[in-house]
Amino acid sequence: MPSPEFFQVIPVDDALALLDQHWQPLPATETLSTAAALDRILAADLRSPEQVPAFRKSTVDGYALRAADTFGASQSLPAFLRLRGELKMGEAPTDDVGVADALLIHTGGMLPASADAVVMLEQAQVIDEGEIEILRAAAPGENVIQAGEDIAAGALVLPRGQRLRAQDIGGLLAVGISEIPVLARPRVGILSCGDELTPPEARLTPGMVRDINAYTLSALAEKHDAAPLRLGIAADAINDYRQRAEAGFAACDILLLSAGSSVSARDYTRDVINGLGAPGLLQHGLATKPGKPTIIAVCKNKPVIGLPGNPASALLVARQLLPHLIARYLGQAPQSPATREARLSQRVASVTGREDWLPVKLSRAEDGGTLAEPVFGKSNLIFTLIAADGLLRVPLNTGGYEAGSIVDVQLF
Amino acid sequence: MPSPEFFQVIPVDDALALLDQHWQPLPATETLSTAAALDRILAADLRSPEQVPAFRKSTVDGYALRAADTFGASQSLPAFLRLRGELKMGEAPTDDVGVADALLIHTGGMLPASADAVVMLEQAQVIDEGEIEILRAAAPGENVIQAGEDIAAGALVLPRGQRLRAQDIGGLLAVGISEIPVLARPRVGILSCGDELTPPEARLTPGMVRDINAYTLSALAEKHDAAPLRLGIAADAINDYRQRAEAGFAACDILLLSAGSSVSARDYTRDVINGLGAPGLLQHGLATKPGKPTIIAVCKNKPVIGLPGNPASALLVARQLLPHLIARYLGQAPQSPATREARLSQRVASVTGREDWLPVKLSRAEDGGTLAEPVFGKSNLIFTLIAADGLLRVPLNTGGYEAGSIVDVQLF
Repeated sequence: MPSPEFFQVIPVDDALALLDQHWQPLPATETLSTAAALDRILAADLRSPEQVPAFRKSTVDGYALRAADTFGASQSLPAFLRLRGELKMGEAPTDDVGVADALLIHTGGMLPASADAVVMLEQAQVIDEGEIEILRAAAPGENVIQAGEDIAAGALVLPRGQRLRAQDIGGLLAVGISEIPVLARPRVGILSCGDELTPPEARLTPGMVRDINAYTLSALAEKHDAAPLRLGIAADAINDYRQRAEAGFAACDILLLSAGSSVSARDYTRDVINGLGAPGLLQHGLATKPGKPTIIAVCKNKPVIGLPGNPASALLVARQLLPHLIARYLGQAPQSPATREARLSQRVASVTGREDWLPVKLSRAEDGGTLAEPVFGKSNLIFTLIAADGLLRVPLNTGGYEAGSIVDVQLF
Repeated sequence: MPSPEFFQVIPVDDALALLDQHWQPLPATETLSTAAALDRILAADLRSPEQVPAFRKSTVDGYALRAADTFGASQSLPAFLRLRGELKMGEAPTDDVGVADALLIHTGGMLPASADAVVMLEQAQVIDEGEIEILRAAAPGENVIQAGEDIAAGALVLPRGQRLRAQDIGGLLAVGISEIPVLARPRVGILSCGDELTPPEARLTPGMVRDINAYTLSALAEKHDAAPLRLGIAADAINDYRQRAEAGFAACDILLLSAGSSVSARDYTRDVINGLGAPGLLQHGLATKPGKPTIIAVCKNKPVIGLPGNPASALLVARQLLPHLIARYLGQAPQSPATREARLSQRVASVTGREDWLPVKLSRAEDGGTLAEPVFGKSNLIFTLIAADGLLRVPLNTGGYEAGSIVDVQLF
C-alpha cells in the first residue's frame, strides 16, 4: 500500500539556488539572418566591418560649398556663389566645387571633394538659374556628418549577450552584417506520464482525461523564449516512463516531467529522474502551494523538474521555475513579471511555512482603483486560471492579507 | 526649387484620434491549431462541446465507498469495510461498491456507480488484504468532483477577443477544442523610397546607404503581433513609387511609407498616398520630435503612414503610432510600454508646442536608484538608439526637466 508523501519542503528561491549551484549552462550557438533575429541573444561581440556613414554627407537640404567662401556673409551683405547644378542621391558626385561655387544637395547626399559645409535652403536666395546669395556665414563642417562619425570601422556595434531590439537589427544591417551568431533557444522537453492521459485531439473514453500539461507548459516555454519539445505521454509503467524520459532527455536542455496523478506515477518519477544521471534528485518538496510535491534535479548538467500532474499546479509551479532556468541558459537576468496594484476584496488566510499563489480576477473598483477578487476552485483546475487575470502571492510566514489590503498582483 | 516644409502640426494623440475616426478595422479570421495559438486573439466565443470532468472523479488517493457506510465512524469506533480491489486509472470501473464495500482509488480516478465519497488513505487502516477500517465519517460528495463541475457542456470557455494565454490553450484542449478561429495578424506593409537606398546585403557603392527602415519597422510590427510585409525599395521617381505603393497597399492592412531623405521623395509621398484612395491625407505634421514631417492618412479604410526617412526618426514615430493601429485592428486596448523611474543626470530643455523623445541610457546610481543619462547624436541616427535603454518623453508645453528630476523612462 503506497503511503502518503511526507517530505521536508524548501522555499522556491532556495530550490533555484540549488539548481544554479549544480548546473552550468553550455548554450549552443546558431547562425541566423539578422532580419529574423528579433529578441534573440547575440552569441559574440560584433564589430563593424566598415564605417558609417561611408562618406561625408549632408544633414539638410541645401548648398554644398566651401565655408571660406561665406566668410562674413549676412542678410545685408550676402556672399554671391555660382550654382553649378544639383548632386544626385545615391551617386558619387560627378562635379566638385571650386572657389565661390555651390552645388544643390539633398539630405543624406554625398559631399563633393572640395566642399566642407552645407548651407540650408532657407539661408540662401536664388538670384537666377546660375547664381545664389548666401545670407549667413557657414562654419567648416556645418550640416555635414563626417565619414565614420556614427560608427568607426572596427568599433563594437553590439556586445555578446545583447537581446536584439528593433534598433539593434537596424544597426547591424546598417554596417552590412546580415548574418549573426545567436544563442540557440533552450529546448524544453515536456513528458507527461499517466495511464489516464490521452492526446487532446483523441476521442475521450470513460476514465480518460486529455493531457493538457504538455500544451500549457509548451506555451509557457514559448512565452519565455525557449523552444518547447513535446515528448508525448508515457504509460504509468516504469519501463515505458524511463525509456521515454531518457530519449527526451537526450534531445533537450531542460526536462519537465509532469507525473500523472496516480501514486505509482509519482513514485516512478523519482526513480526515472535518478536514472538520468548524476547528481540526480536535489530536492523533493517546495514550500509553495500549489506545488508542494515538486521535484528539483540536475542530471548530467541539465535541469530536470518533476511537476505535479494537476494542470493548474503544474503551470503555477513551472511559472516559478522555468523562466529562471531559460534566462540562466541564455545568460540573461530573469525578468520580473508585470504587476498591478490592487485592493483585495476579501480576507486571504495563509499557512505558516509555505507561500500561497492565489488566482485573482481584477476589476475596476468604484473609487477608480483596481479590485482583486480571489478565484477559488475546488481542485485548483485550469478553469480557475482561465477566470483569473493574475496571481496573488501570499509570502512565507505572513498571516495572509486582510480584506482591503493593497497588494501587488502578478499579471498573466 | 523645392521649398522647405511648413505645416501646422498636431499632437500625436490627435493624429491617432483622426485615424480612429476614419478607419473601421475589418479584421480577417483564420483557423489555427489551438496548440499554436499563444498570444493570438479569439475570433469567436467558444463554448464547451462537453462537460469537464467527463465523469465523477476522486480528488485524492483513497477509498471509494458509500458515505452512508461510514456514518458515525471515528478513531475509537471505526467502520469496517470490505476492500474489493483497486480501480485502474484511465478505465471505467469494472467493479462497483455494494453495502460496506470499498475500492482503492487514485487521484483523478473514476468513481464506481454506487460510490458517493472517497476517504483519504490517511483516514483508513488496512486490517488485512480484504478489509479496512475507516476512522472518520465521510460526507456524501467528499473528495469527489462531480461530472461537469469544472465546466458544463455548452458553457462559455473563452470569449471573442481573448488573447490566448497558456491556461487558455489548456482549457480549450481540455474540452477537446483543438482548432480555433483567431483574428489574422494585421499585415503591415513597409515600402522605402529613395535612389540612395540599397538592400542591406548588397555591396555599398559611393553615395548609397543601406535601407534599414524596412527591417527596424518589421521588427517593431513583429514585436506588437503584426505580420510585417517588406515591399522593397522604390526609386525616387513618382511612377515607380506609385506602382510599388499600390501593389503593396493591396496586399496589406496597414501601410508604412518611409520616404527617402530627398526633397522629391518627400514631396512624392503626399501624392502617392492621395492616389491610394479616399479620404487620403488627413494630417501632415506631428507635434513631436523626431517625427514632425510625418503624414497621417486613411485610404480605402486602411491606415497609411508616411514616416521620415531617418532611421531613428522613423522608428521613434512608428513606436507612437503602429502599436495603437495594430491593437485597434485586433480589437485590443493598446498596451502601455513598460517604464522605469529614474533620476535625470542633466537638465533637458524642451521647446513649447511639441513633445520631445530623448534616448536615455540607464545605470545604477550611487544611492542604489536608477540614473537616466540622455544619449545625444548629431543626426539622431540608429546608433544613438542602440546606445540607449529607453526613451524620455518631454511632454508638450512643459519647460523640460531640471537635472535630478525623477522621470519615467519608457523601456525599449
